[in-house]
Amino acid sequence: MIPIDDSPLCRDGKVLILAFDHGLEHGPVDFAGLPESADPERTFEAATHPAVTSIAVQKGIAEAYYPSYEDDVNLLMKLNGTSNLWMGEPDTAVNCSVDYAAEVGASSVGFTVYGGSNNEIEMVEEFREAQEAAREYGLPTVMWSYPRGQGLKNDTSEETIAYAARLALELGADVAKVKYPGSKTGMEHAVQMAGKTKVVMSGGSKTTDREFLQSVKAVMDAGGKGLAVGRNVWQRENPTALLDSLEKVIFEGASVDAALE
Amino acid sequence: MIPIDDSPLCRDGKVLILAFDHGLEHGPVDFAGLPESADPERTFEAATHPAVTSIAVQKGIAEAYYPSYEDDVNLLMKLNGTSNLWMGEPDTAVNCSVDYAAEVGASSVGFTVYGGSNNEIEMVEEFREAQEAAREYGLPTVMWSYPRGQGLKNDTSEETIAYAARLALELGADVAKVKYPGSKTGMEHAVQMAGKTKVVMSGGSKTTDREFLQSVKAVMDAGGKGLAVGRNVWQRENPTALLDSLEKVIFEGASVDAALE
Amino acid sequence: MIPIDDSPLCRDGKVLILAFDHGLEHGPVDFAGLPESADPERTFEAATHPAVTSIAVQKGIAEAYYPSYEDDVNLLMKLNGTSNLWMGEPDTAVNCSVDYAAEVGASSVGFTVYGGSNNEIEMVEEFREAQEAAREYGLPTVMWSYPRGQGLKNDTSEETIAYAARLALELGADVAKVKYPGSKTGMEHAVQMAGKTKVVMSGGSKTTDREFLQSVKAVMDAGGKGLAVGRNVWQRENPTALLDSLEKVIFEGASVDAALE
Amino acid sequence: MIPIDDSPLCRDGKVLILAFDHGLEHGPVDFAGLPESADPERTFEAATHPAVTSIAVQKGIAEAYYPSYEDDVNLLMKLNGTSNLWMGEPDTAVNCSVDYAAEVGASSVGFTVYGGSNNEIEMVEEFREAQEAAREYGLPTVMWSYPRGQGLKNDTSEETIAYAARLALELGADVAKVKYPGSKTGMEHAVQMAGKTKVVMSGGSKTTDREFLQSVKAVMDAGGKGLAVGRNVWQRENPTALLDSLEKVIFEGASVDAALE
Amino acid sequence: MIPIDDSPLCRDGKVLILAFDHGLEHGPVDFAGLPESADPERTFEAATHPAVTSIAVQKGIAEAYYPSYEDDVNLLMKLNGTSNLWMGEPDTAVNCSVDYAAEVGASSVGFTVYGGSNNEIEMVEEFREAQEAAREYGLPTVMWSYPRGQGLKNDTSEETIAYAARLALELGADVAKVKYPGSKTGMEHAVQMAGKTKVVMSGGSKTTDREFLQSVKAVMDAGGKGLAVGRNVWQRENPTALLDSLEKVIFEGASVDAALE
Repeated sequence: MIPIDDSPLCRDGKVLILAFDHGLEHGPVDFAGLPESADPERTFEAATHPAVTSIAVQKGIAEAYYPSYEDDVNLLMKLNGTSNLWMGEPDTAVNCSVDYAAEVGASSVGFTVYGGSNNEIEMVEEFREAQEAAREYGLPTVMWSYPRGQGLKNDTSEETIAYAARLALELGADVAKVKYPGSKTGMEHAVQMAGKTKVVMSGGSKTTDREFLQSVKAVMDAGGKGLAVGRNVWQRENPTALLDSLEKVIFEGASVDAALE
Repeated sequence: MIPIDDSPLCRDGKVLILAFDHGLEHGPVDFAGLPESADPERTFEAATHPAVTSIAVQKGIAEAYYPSYEDDVNLLMKLNGTSNLWMGEPDTAVNCSVDYAAEVGASSVGFTVYGGSNNEIEMVEEFREAQEAAREYGLPTVMWSYPRGQGLKNDTSEETIAYAARLALELGADVAKVKYPGSKTGMEHAVQMAGKTKVVMSGGSKTTDREFLQSVKAVMDAGGKGLAVGRNVWQRENPTALLDSLEKVIFEGASVDAALE
Repeated sequence: MIPIDDSPLCRDGKVLILAFDHGLEHGPVDFAGLPESADPERTFEAATHPAVTSIAVQKGIAEAYYPSYEDDVNLLMKLNGTSNLWMGEPDTAVNCSVDYAAEVGASSVGFTVYGGSNNEIEMVEEFREAQEAAREYGLPTVMWSYPRGQGLKNDTSEETIAYAARLALELGADVAKVKYPGSKTGMEHAVQMAGKTKVVMSGGSKTTDREFLQSVKAVMDAGGKGLAVGRNVWQRENPTALLDSLEKVIFEGASVDAALE
Repeated sequence: MIPIDDSPLCRDGKVLILAFDHGLEHGPVDFAGLPESADPERTFEAATHPAVTSIAVQKGIAEAYYPSYEDDVNLLMKLNGTSNLWMGEPDTAVNCSVDYAAEVGASSVGFTVYGGSNNEIEMVEEFREAQEAAREYGLPTVMWSYPRGQGLKNDTSEETIAYAARLALELGADVAKVKYPGSKTGMEHAVQMAGKTKVVMSGGSKTTDREFLQSVKAVMDAGGKGLAVGRNVWQRENPTALLDSLEKVIFEGASVDAALE
Repeated sequence: MIPIDDSPLCRDGKVLILAFDHGLEHGPVDFAGLPESADPERTFEAATHPAVTSIAVQKGIAEAYYPSYEDDVNLLMKLNGTSNLWMGEPDTAVNCSVDYAAEVGASSVGFTVYGGSNNEIEMVEEFREAQEAAREYGLPTVMWSYPRGQGLKNDTSEETIAYAARLALELGADVAKVKYPGSKTGMEHAVQMAGKTKVVMSGGSKTTDREFLQSVKAVMDAGGKGLAVGRNVWQRENPTALLDSLEKVIFEGASVDAALE
């Protein structure tokens, strides 16, 4: 962890990442309900919303679409990822070097680590290389910290999420992106374990506005620093509406009711 | 994806790759019906046809035959490939470095990725290195995107082809070479998923002129940007005739009937 | 082994390392009995005690917390480690390069080797790289020498601990951190095997003050050069009290009774 | 393939390699019938015969014996090889770097590839590195192209030998060393597949003069460019006699009868 | 093989290596009968005997003890080795780089290769790197050539030892350290196979003075160039006595009886 409050990834010390790497991780099936959501431009447009502190995409989408938005959007380059076609023990390929991410204009980087996977050792060592390279460019590093694989039965238990948050601190991530552990107290535990590393919630699959905002509110109340959201924004017909509400909850401390008005 | 319309790989934004790496991938059996087709010079001659935007060959053939054709043909160096003697899970060896491809005169590079193979992670990481090296030389990168292996049952389903096209976009290919998914709507889906990455059809085994042109026409009508063709050209007694027809369909928007006249 | 008595890791030729990498190695469960112990600041505060010659932490904690303590605490960067989620044969990931450790301000480095594990060869080769890089910076190297895995049944037998100590000497560690073999004569054997390499005891899980100090006293009497202690300090409500006692036993040659007064 | 007719490996565009790496590949058993044949000097002496265009040996023998013969013999450094003690799937170790081969005075290099082995991918990638390094020194590259291993049942079938020859062309070898497929037409097929890459026959175990010369004659008549011979020369009491005959068949186009006179 | 007679490893073209890496390879058990033998200083003292051309130790012992003896002893750095805790197929870790060996003052290097092990390929490639790096420093290379593992049943048969000696020649070792094959004719065979590479006997476990000297005499009579001895020297109460006798047999051509006087 290094101080990142002055970086483009943060606004008032908080973070709202709009993630759009689902075309790689899940495939076209995620766009099936709303075909136009496959178009990266649509999500880049949404990312111009002032609530969004950065957009998270893979290299190819950054190359192709970021040049048109570099004045209005901050780029978090997701450095690794794997297709859903992969059937082996959880693992992920490094798809982009930090050097190239910097060249394309990234102001932060993201990296997945599957603690407990039989590939944990290798992934953590790849994380080391990425994190240290990012330090040379002064780029904040976000860890997608998702315990998964042989060593795990329940990957959203309170204890697992707390361990995930701690791994991010110990290994040198500036932000830990973890799944919601199901309760405010669970998130408080994770936040405590993460120390100075900021904890943000991973948005997950689409739910109702209220349900989603309630979990975000719980995260903020628990000391979390924000959210990485994907499907709950761009799978909606109107991505902007929910971003308006998220801005109120995350940056203005509003209640869920107030944010939904 | 970076803009490649002004590169030698494109003509009016479209692509016709004449592929001749079958001696490595399939072996001499592909030349059995027409022994003279084994001679690379014959296919280099065919590649001088104005419809062909580039010839795709392996390093050894490029070294030996391209010097005589460098004024008349554009070289796409296929960087990886494997013999058909290989019996393991789908995989491919990197046979040529980007540095050496540039030295031999390549104006673009090609790379196979078998999504879903147990070797996907490694192949995608090798693709990363090749793609980023190609960026330094300003060489467009074509991904042979062929989901195959343990994670797959039907590798030409619409959904698989769409995923293949999306992988090319996400990972930073400028052109996605995918199998024909069997219908125009299937190809439209793939094209939509590929975003700014150009989609071209992989020619496959030899069929009749009409059948082949019909599939090419469907690809173009679906928003595809062209074709990578091999056996359907050089396994014919007269490779030029079909290239004449392909030129009409791909670059002049002709109907299949008009192209066959 | 190179002379390290003049380095920050030593005081009068002896060593007291306060270890705090349990959040990575064991996870949040180690903090369950005393939640505030999860906070690295608390242990950094304890490390300002004059008895502590260095604090041992992972990269992320060093980055985040060491800058506030660099005038009062010496940093031993633990270069590798693994989460307890890992279910495979004993292994450990290299989480920090020596270059980066030096940049963060480390004055010594630590490295785990699991002799007898199926990953011994790889770990020892990683140790080689770390040790030789540390030599370039003049940083002492501490080996966490813990025989474990397929090749071992009883990893705290006298013979195993003696072998562990010898490995540290043979492979070039300046300090060997080994488990307590259960007796003073066992530790004498280990010390003899380690030659010029200093042997320190690994503290292990929390016990009573008296029991713990008795084992430390036995180590010192056996020719050991000190201790690496973690849970027995920071899992206590008052970490300072035991450090006072340890200072007497280790640096002043006091008896256990005198140290407990 | 690059033009190599002007290199020391060729005489009038043809090639006669005297191979002496059997001490590594087969072990002392190959010298059992004629103990003095173990001495590399004896084969270096034979290599001074004008029929021999290069001697092929491993690094250690080149270092020890080539300095005395560098004015009279051309050195082909065999870059990889494996002992017969190896019991795993066909594989081979890279025993010499191209840099070092050049330093020792090699004027060409040799590399084994076992197509169809479970180690094919790795071997082909090692070949790539060697071939591209050899290009920097302008050294011709000879591929020992021996399909073998899991993917193969009959490694001297016509089709397998033809594929072996094609692999050499596709992957960038200047000379393909293949086993004799049993007939002149089989060799013609291989030669056709190899295109501009020269095909030479691998000599194999010792036979009678006539039988051996007949197969060599068939190779030349089929368009082959020569021979790599080992045991059929140095396992004979008088290595020179057969070299005289080989010179007639390979370089002077003589019949077997004339060559035996 | 390169000429090494003028190097510190040789005296009159012969070699007597005093080996002391048993603490790593065998562990403390080798010192059990004579506890003071664990102390490296004792063996360094013995190495000042004029019969000893070099002492062979691992990196850590060289670092710690060689500086006091660099005027009186020549250092052979053993570059790889493995603990006896290892239960896998024979393998060995590279514990020291050639660069660092040179920095510590080594005048030659040693490297183990287990031909026939499932790790042969990897070990031989590591040997290549070490040998070529040693060439840059002009350091002679000694191969501990010990066929062992899956491919072998009897690793001291005449044929195996002969093959071991040949491997050393083929792969570029200057000295082959092999086990005694049980007879003078067996050693003659090995010497013949090794060509210009010097063959020295590996001492093995402790025996009587007479038995040991008889085997050494047989080695010298067979054309061997000396001995690498460990336990037969430093497991004795008086290491010097046997060194006196060895000096007579190896460097003065004395009979066993004369040497024992």
